[in-house]
Amino acid sequence: MTKKVLLVGVGGVGAIAALGLEWRKQSEVTAVVRSDFDKAIKEGYHIKSVDYGEIKNFKPSHIVKSVKEAVNYGPFEFIVVCTKNTPDIVLIEEVIQDAVTDETAIVLLQNGIGIERPIIKRFPGTIVLSAVSIIGSSNHNCEINHDYIDKVSVGYFDNNVTSKEEQERVAKEFVELYSTENNDITFDPNVKYTRWKKLVYNGTLNPICALTGVDVARLEMFGGTNALVRQAMYEILSVARADGVELDKDICEIMIRSDDPLWYSPSMLIDMRKGNYTEVQVLCGNVVKIAEENGVPIPILKVIYDLHLVIQKSKMEKNGLIELPKERFIPDKEHPPL
Amino acid sequence: MTKKVLLVGVGGVGAIAALGLEWRKQSEVTAVVRSDFDKAIKEGYHIKSVDYGEIKNFKPSHIVKSVKEAVNYGPFEFIVVCTKNTPDIVLIEEVIQDAVTDETAIVLLQNGIGIERPIIKRFPGTIVLSAVSIIGSSNHNCEINHDYIDKVSVGYFDNNVTSKEEQERVAKEFVELYSTENNDITFDPNVKYTRWKKLVYNGTLNPICALTGVDVARLEMFGGTNALVRQAMYEILSVARADGVELDKDICEIMIRSDDPLWYSPSMLIDMRKGNYTEVQVLCGNVVKIAEENGVPIPILKVIYDLHLVIQKSKMEKNGLIELPKERFIPDKEHPPL
Repeated sequence: MTKKVLLVGVGGVGAIAALGLEWRKQSEVTAVVRSDFDKAIKEGYHIKSVDYGEIKNFKPSHIVKSVKEAVNYGPFEFIVVCTKNTPDIVLIEEVIQDAVTDETAIVLLQNGIGIERPIIKRFPGTIVLSAVSIIGSSNHNCEINHDYIDKVSVGYFDNNVTSKEEQERVAKEFVELYSTENNDITFDPNVKYTRWKKLVYNGTLNPICALTGVDVARLEMFGGTNALVRQAMYEILSVARADGVELDKDICEIMIRSDDPLWYSPSMLIDMRKGNYTEVQVLCGNVVKIAEENGVPIPILKVIYDLHLVIQKSKMEKNGLIELPKERFIPDKEHPPL
Repeated sequence: MTKKVLLVGVGGVGAIAALGLEWRKQSEVTAVVRSDFDKAIKEGYHIKSVDYGEIKNFKPSHIVKSVKEAVNYGPFEFIVVCTKNTPDIVLIEEVIQDAVTDETAIVLLQNGIGIERPIIKRFPGTIVLSAVSIIGSSNHNCEINHDYIDKVSVGYFDNNVTSKEEQERVAKEFVELYSTENNDITFDPNVKYTRWKKLVYNGTLNPICALTGVDVARLEMFGGTNALVRQAMYEILSVARADGVELDKDICEIMIRSDDPLWYSPSMLIDMRKGNYTEVQVLCGNVVKIAEENGVPIPILKVIYDLHLVIQKSKMEKNGLIELPKERFIPDKEHPPL
């Protein structure tokens, strides 16, 4: 019997996930598509994939504009969230709430640390899976360029309600559903470790490249990696340790060298160049939060975060999410910062 | 007898200084003009000044393209340097060296801390004056808009060769030469104090606005002033103290409020918006240097500086001052950061 899967956010990652899930005809994917909807419903996606070759006119089983509309094709056993993770702009738990039933497991196929907290809080007892993706894939107007293997670690964020066995069973079920002969989807017994490990890169090189406007190669050659990144990585290690995850210091050099010999532009840098919001909350803000909860000093990461926070708010202003007063005011208790 | 003055750099500050110096016919100003030369020599400057009213076709006594050419109108008793202060891009001591004689005093009418060091080192025994300007004035293609009084504190950077009395006498001579009934030029007995005080603003609000892309009002309303600026100012106070200057903590709030109620964009922010080099070395780099010499921890200022340093080098690359290797390399002893 096919499983019903709701997939929210068809970017580079989401498109390949939709394809992988439909590949063995074991899932029926309903995809929520926003900006590309008209083209996607008419022509589908044009995929050039290192895993699957060229596929023209790929369409998931159903393409809809909203989660509300998607509910007609439910109930869903899995809701796979592949959107950019910007909880300061959009709350995932609100986006998906209409589609969550007692039978649903939520899969966060997204970047960041601590991203499960608001989901588990909003849907207590629901199984929430962590999916950490290593993939090179982009979507420009339904043209999917996928040039690095779809490699995903899947585990569960313990919801402290369901038994560990059951959470593990569901995680493995999702691995089975998503696995094809072409991709590399594995069960991850230690979600926390995997997420912190990825954050050694994504919480340092990524936001620092974004602030300075240069790729990782230039950052290193211009002295920024020595001056800032390595120390910032050590700060991540300290926070991870306080959060119960021991990462070997060698991981820092591995991450710094991980893009060699590419002049690689990390995601936040690309977002900055496009004037888009960045994933600052899940890559930086949540680290600051966990550090503060545990009393871990993070002098570099804190400054990086505070700078990005101002930039993010400035974008909110440009997009009309923040309205400025006519006259400059002094933030105080009655007028807190915007 | 008129004094011969060489003025290097006719921006908003330099144009009003040239006007002030020529005002009472006691100085003969030779101005070195680069980008505006053709227009300046033909039409002069169109000045709209809060101090002097509207003046059309203002020309200093001589307008030349280079210091080499200026030497024909010397020897100069004063060389007034009004250029943007970017020692990582241009060395002032090299620019002016052909015009410095035994009779010359050099006036640094420029921003920053520690800016006298390379000048005194290069011209030992030469009197070097400090001129700190509070002015609102801009130059766009020989159109000078001057909207806040020309207020300058003039003192001397002790060169440890000439007697203090003689250095003070020369500083006061310059004050006399520059003073008109319209401006406010005063002798400053404590140059170091004045420069550190101005740096409480210019070493914090200025580079932080530049990194976040917002004016001082938005920075405050978006939380950046509380999160970063105030603490960064305290760091400046610590470095100043180690450098022998005691600044009252109240100065921080005074600086934070000094632009009220304007939505003011500081100079480094304007430079960033224009894609220009910033004065990062004299506003941030020299603070880091003095802090390190004295073992003063400056966690925030260090990060701000390191980020700006990468940005500055990225601009050098764009302008062809730094040539990147074809292949990404790993900085080491043989291949230091660029």
